[in-house]
Amino acid sequence: MSRVIVVGGGAAGASAASRAKRVDPSAEVYLIEATDMITHGPCGIPYVISGIIDKNKLVVYTPEVFEKERGIRVLINSKVVDIDVDKRIVEVYRNKRFEKLKWDKLILATGALPKVPGVPGVSLDNVITIRHPAYVDELIKVISDKDIVAVVGGSYLGIEVVEALLERGKKVLLFEMFNHLLSTSMDEDVASIVEGEVLSRGVELHLSEKLVEIRGGNRVENIVTDKGEYRVGAVILATGVKPNIELAKRTGLRIGETGAVEVNEYMETNVEDVYAAGDLVEKYHRVLNKKVWTPLAPSANKEGLVAGANAVKHRLLKFPGIIGTAITKFYDLVIAKTGLTEKEAKQYNISYEAKVIKTRTKAHYYPGAAEVHVKLIAEKRMGKVIGAQIIGKDHIVAGYIDIASVAIERGMTIEEIFFSDLSYMPATAPVWHPLIVASRVLSKGKL
Amino acid sequence: MSRVIVVGGGAAGASAASRAKRVDPSAEVYLIEATDMITHGPCGIPYVISGIIDKNKLVVYTPEVFEKERGIRVLINSKVVDIDVDKRIVEVYRNKRFEKLKWDKLILATGALPKVPGVPGVSLDNVITIRHPAYVDELIKVISDKDIVAVVGGSYLGIEVVEALLERGKKVLLFEMFNHLLSTSMDEDVASIVEGEVLSRGVELHLSEKLVEIRGGNRVENIVTDKGEYRVGAVILATGVKPNIELAKRTGLRIGETGAVEVNEYMETNVEDVYAAGDLVEKYHRVLNKKVWTPLAPSANKEGLVAGANAVKHRLLKFPGIIGTAITKFYDLVIAKTGLTEKEAKQYNISYEAKVIKTRTKAHYYPGAAEVHVKLIAEKRMGKVIGAQIIGKDHIVAGYIDIASVAIERGMTIEEIFFSDLSYMPATAPVWHPLIVASRVLSKGKL
Repeated sequence: MSRVIVVGGGAAGASAASRAKRVDPSAEVYLIEATDMITHGPCGIPYVISGIIDKNKLVVYTPEVFEKERGIRVLINSKVVDIDVDKRIVEVYRNKRFEKLKWDKLILATGALPKVPGVPGVSLDNVITIRHPAYVDELIKVISDKDIVAVVGGSYLGIEVVEALLERGKKVLLFEMFNHLLSTSMDEDVASIVEGEVLSRGVELHLSEKLVEIRGGNRVENIVTDKGEYRVGAVILATGVKPNIELAKRTGLRIGETGAVEVNEYMETNVEDVYAAGDLVEKYHRVLNKKVWTPLAPSANKEGLVAGANAVKHRLLKFPGIIGTAITKFYDLVIAKTGLTEKEAKQYNISYEAKVIKTRTKAHYYPGAAEVHVKLIAEKRMGKVIGAQIIGKDHIVAGYIDIASVAIERGMTIEEIFFSDLSYMPATAPVWHPLIVASRVLSKGKL
Repeated sequence: MSRVIVVGGGAAGASAASRAKRVDPSAEVYLIEATDMITHGPCGIPYVISGIIDKNKLVVYTPEVFEKERGIRVLINSKVVDIDVDKRIVEVYRNKRFEKLKWDKLILATGALPKVPGVPGVSLDNVITIRHPAYVDELIKVISDKDIVAVVGGSYLGIEVVEALLERGKKVLLFEMFNHLLSTSMDEDVASIVEGEVLSRGVELHLSEKLVEIRGGNRVENIVTDKGEYRVGAVILATGVKPNIELAKRTGLRIGETGAVEVNEYMETNVEDVYAAGDLVEKYHRVLNKKVWTPLAPSANKEGLVAGANAVKHRLLKFPGIIGTAITKFYDLVIAKTGLTEKEAKQYNISYEAKVIKTRTKAHYYPGAAEVHVKLIAEKRMGKVIGAQIIGKDHIVAGYIDIASVAIERGMTIEEIFFSDLSYMPATAPVWHPLIVASRVLSKGKL
């Protein structure tokens, strides 16, 4: 009987363990998690902060149920402190003692960690990061009696946290070092719509302002940027995340240029019988044809599934990579992108055309339509669409971005998108679908 | 200066005229329409009946504005009575006289007409069909003082009309001769969900019941089927539509097997310099690789655009065809399909697998999720997905069907859909997207 040990009980790890056991029910599968939660949804943390959902709901399975229903040994509050690849042993610290466990196949899924800026004062009390759901109570406790909270970082997570804080009645100062919000995922023209919404909620928005220091006695009192000093009761750092590679490095796994663990399409690492999946690893970007690091739950789940299947059945599945789809919202404004941004197209020297259009989500006469902005980017040589950014106060935006995602993945041209057979009825779309209008405008008179 | 005459001012005709003028501003373009409305949206008629929108709002452009803004001569209340292809003349009846107009290129876009069953009594007063927005006032007048209305035909249009009648406080009897609703567009398993909704609104639903006669003096009094006789105040026939080919036939245009005008991908008919577009013509079905007749606004618009462009610039554009996407709603239940149904797969002897799954539209913990049913159909040889039917009380269903539509059009397999990079955030999708869950289930354990 072979033993599969999975390190990390988040999306990738739980998927990997489940899949391994499912593909080979005779395998002995361990899932080892450092906190007391597995199958937790960190993407839901902002909604726990805002109070619309309960923390415990973020968990799909309790360790007990997971163990029972899936036949997987789950070790919680268990930290893997060392891995010996020659002897095929993991050393685990749990119940205040160290234990050794043999493995035949190992899957690392240790996820990501918040990136903390290297400025003075980040260790003060009431300076917090958003990480694992296990720590969200602590965060809520910190902010509960504060009136003014600073959020550093205008990323997807940053604006989700801003919404959560507003929902709790906090005055919010949002600091972003770049000249627009969502600087790594959206272009400036589209991000400006988000900025308008953020400002309309009375958020104090500080763009192009870099964190220099956090000041206080024990607890934070002031936040200092290159442009000013502001009195705040707490600081939430949403300054990005990084792959949690410490254990992987010590295990001898190769780290790629992105700083994450290198894997092939089978989720194999450079070390035999050691797989890795999820936020820990690099992803192959199908449009760029290169490795990137985009830590998101959907690919983590699928990578985990591939790693788990392959761990018990050699190269059963391949993970084809991602194309950079991401989505968030600020109140009812849904903000989504897929493929490359204009900025990325420039960065990678792709000759491109880009246009933003504004249209509606329903027939011109049907009540309740939302305004929607669609930006499409196409490379010039073949007219293939390589990127889309869509934003509007209607969750149908999620549908639109996924249409674009599939279209981009399949290498569709502007003309092919224009002629695609998208659905129409007055209550759900204009007769010229927003993506069709956008492709038409991008065709510069051809369509 | 060449002259383009477009016959029919609906979606296809107006698109054709606009495009011709746009591609060749020197062309003299005529748009000839039998009613007093052009660029009208017949898909909105049910919402005029229900009262949520005003009839005049169905019109995108008045004839005056269209003429002025687009530089197109618009003749309304003008009926084309004859076409001479040798002399290149159309004869028009307008202002109580007959006029002859020369053309260099002719585009026919005469649309579709309601199909009326051949049973006694269909010509009685208060027996009505749904056709052009120009006639909707008449329809509203007829039903306004009736308490009980029968709708014959459980098609998309049929259930839209049922909703409209319920909104107006009418008791509705719905008759469908097949054993389930939406028999031409959905499979029985999925249609049963619609039937549940229809019944829950107190509609008297008569399945497998065929209209035999409509009885009354001058006005309808009773509707008679092969199973019973029912007292009603009005009857709305939603028994399908047929291409309005009379003029086309007289002009010598070839009629295809489907009963609609045969065109190639340039929207050329068999007669030189005569194009046809919209509900009048057959469409190439990209999954079936054969001609079908599916009269829907989005393809009508695009076909019109292609015909208009090509009329002034030889073979400038190609219309690649359709894949059978269609969508409707019954109150908040959105009902959509694309590609082939299971029934069609059988009919065309395609070896297939089909599964229906039930999931949710948001993360398991996020409030406000709707239940959604996804049926996927894949051919067995390559595992290519060839059909989808999706139904749920969330207009995101429109987005889902369009993702499936693009995926099917591009020949994606079950596995390719599973690994596609669809968006996720708790408020807009479950972490395993409904289409990904559906493809997973269809993979029968592989994924």
